Amino acid sequence: MEKKSLEICFSPAMFPAHADKEAVAVIIDILRATSSICTAFANGVTRIIPVSSPDEALKLKKEGYLVAAERDGYVLDFADFGNSPFNFSPEKVKGRVVAYSTTNGTGLMQMASGCHDVVIGSYLNFTSLCNWLTKQDRKVIIICAGWKNRFNLEDTLFAGAVAERLLADGGFVTACDSVHASLDLWHQAKDDILGYTEKAAQRSRLRDKGLDDCLEYCHTFDTTTVIPVLRGGSLVAL
Amino acid sequence: MEKKSLEICFSPAMFPAHADKEAVAVIIDILRATSSICTAFANGVTRIIPVSSPDEALKLKKEGYLVAAERDGYVLDFADFGNSPFNFSPEKVKGRVVAYSTTNGTGLMQMASGCHDVVIGSYLNFTSLCNWLTKQDRKVIIICAGWKNRFNLEDTLFAGAVAERLLADGGFVTACDSVHASLDLWHQAKDDILGYTEKAAQRSRLRDKGLDDCLEYCHTFDTTTVIPVLRGGSLVAL
Repeated sequence: MEKKSLEICFSPAMFPAHADKEAVAVIIDILRATSSICTAFANGVTRIIPVSSPDEALKLKKEGYLVAAERDGYVLDFADFGNSPFNFSPEKVKGRVVAYSTTNGTGLMQMASGCHDVVIGSYLNFTSLCNWLTKQDRKVIIICAGWKNRFNLEDTLFAGAVAERLLADGGFVTACDSVHASLDLWHQAKDDILGYTEKAAQRSRLRDKGLDDCLEYCHTFDTTTVIPVLRGGSLVAL
Repeated sequence: MEKKSLEICFSPAMFPAHADKEAVAVIIDILRATSSICTAFANGVTRIIPVSSPDEALKLKKEGYLVAAERDGYVLDFADFGNSPFNFSPEKVKGRVVAYSTTNGTGLMQMASGCHDVVIGSYLNFTSLCNWLTKQDRKVIIICAGWKNRFNLEDTLFAGAVAERLLADGGFVTACDSVHASLDLWHQAKDDILGYTEKAAQRSRLRDKGLDDCLEYCHTFDTTTVIPVLRGGSLVAL
């Protein structure tokens, strides 16, 4: 098999410069959307409908769907719950369909939907994700949700962790400066990820809102083997 | 004086997320536009007109202006010369007005023109630039030209060098993850900048085209004290 290309896109705003319909897109939003989505599938959700606007979420709520929706860390008042992974417990989501709207993550899924496949990554499904990407004969673009089109550290570190694995034994090469930067930051951070993440803006936002109870959980490797994938506008387990 | 805010924007595509009309914008495109612009002013150019399209550059050529214009490292056929800093010699530019169009840098100047001030930075005017920014009572946004809206390493390293100086003794603070990342990458690279830059995509592009003779020059600190600034659509010496 020829070596496959690996790229990292640091912000939804930069996605048009990376877009490639032949590539597999990996969406990451470590704090907290993609960690929550992996948790939901690990706990038996059947389908997640990503919605980008609160209006669309409200419409699905009125149609009877369970709705997870937040903006800037605050649960929207009509929603059943917000964006903490601890909300997506088996009691709440097992066998259910959930409509899910977040500040940064869900709009990006729709943006990336022109790629060959769109999958969801987090520390929680790290090894399973890397093994699957290794088996695909396709270019991979890791897309960081960032924060309102800005760069963020926590997604970059995870992108670096995936890049380290794929370049080491996944048959990938790269000519993408974002990959080199992510690797170098990951190497600085990997022995104390939570310590490094102390300086991240999202770390402060979550602390200020009392939403940082999930920080350690969202940086735990391999709690599940599930890989959520976008199929016909919804996320399902691969 | 209250502490001033520092941000780094990694790509023109991300600029709308950083834009602030009260801020000073520092445009950087180390390989090679802003290094060439600083060289031109050090060598006595009176004014540089940044133009974003080849058509606009051709129009100014027909009006009698000296024109520097390239796309992807190639000199446009109607131009007087391209984007190497060595082209902007005193013999060619002293006392002249130059119209200048590059792949990534010049469009960005027009995009940032809504900021309070737009200045041009490179290693060549590093200390002078940092001292001037320190004296302004304004937020600073360092804008990396990147490569066709992608992230690049060489601009990020320089942004990190400026950030190190401004945060140490310039009266600045930051809550911007791009600043933290740039600082950490700069700290890894600073003892051997050219060695680190070997992995940069633009390093390979310039080598492939035989345009890498300026690499060491473009990473030389403090060859000039001039600070080019945008005034009424043109760059002049501050």
